Amino acid sequence: MRARSASAEGPGETMATDYNQYCPVSRTLDIIGDRWTILILRDLILQGARKFHELQSSLVRISPNTLSARLKTLEEHGIIARRIYEEHPPRAEYALTETGNELRPVLRTLRAWGEKHIKGVKVA
Amino acid sequence: MRARSASAEGPGETMATDYNQYCPVSRTLDIIGDRWTILILRDLILQGARKFHELQSSLVRISPNTLSARLKTLEEHGIIARRIYEEHPPRAEYALTETGNELRPVLRTLRAWGEKHIKGVKVA
Repeated sequence: MRARSASAEGPGETMATDYNQYCPVSRTLDIIGDRWTILILRDLILQGARKFHELQSSLVRISPNTLSARLKTLEEHGIIARRIYEEHPPRAEYALTETGNELRPVLRTLRAWGEKHIKGVKVA
Repeated sequence: MRARSASAEGPGETMATDYNQYCPVSRTLDIIGDRWTILILRDLILQGARKFHELQSSLVRISPNTLSARLKTLEEHGIIARRIYEEHPPRAEYALTETGNELRPVLRTLRAWGEKHIKGVKVA
């Protein structure tokens, strides 16, 4: 996990910046606090290991570059692992690690909340 | 809760779009899946009812317009409630509702995950 470098803040902003820099919620959001990233985690939790094109067809409007960048960030932080399942041509799939699995309650809560409070969603 | 209007999609995208439209995780993220929004919920959970300027000084780089828009969305979906605590001049504060309280496990998991896996954060 890389430490964020201190940013140049104006006077008076230092304390609040430090607060967010040291806040575990804020720092976790630096890694996964993006809509696409949470939907990638959803797919890996619900469907197990997924190939790039499977994720791409589930996340309709995501660009290949964005998907690639999000997967790379998740891999760098040990949340998902990339596995080569075919050598010629090389093909990879992505799966949650143990560390990634610990984020399951986030998804579980979002799902339960949506099922209870939003009209028109599919209830499992 | 407003139903999202059907968007014009090209052929072949309908099923995946529908999947996300009916997915309770995706629909919940439509409401709270924004970094600022989750940090607003963090502050209301940790610190109870907060005034606009208190939220603004905690969320250092947020613009007043963005904070105002996020609070309005949360209020429209019954996640927070606005309470007038002073009439002259009118002053309001914001607090989680029961419905909002049900999102606590999201924040709890993000915090626990960050405390365990990210170096340099403050552990409660």
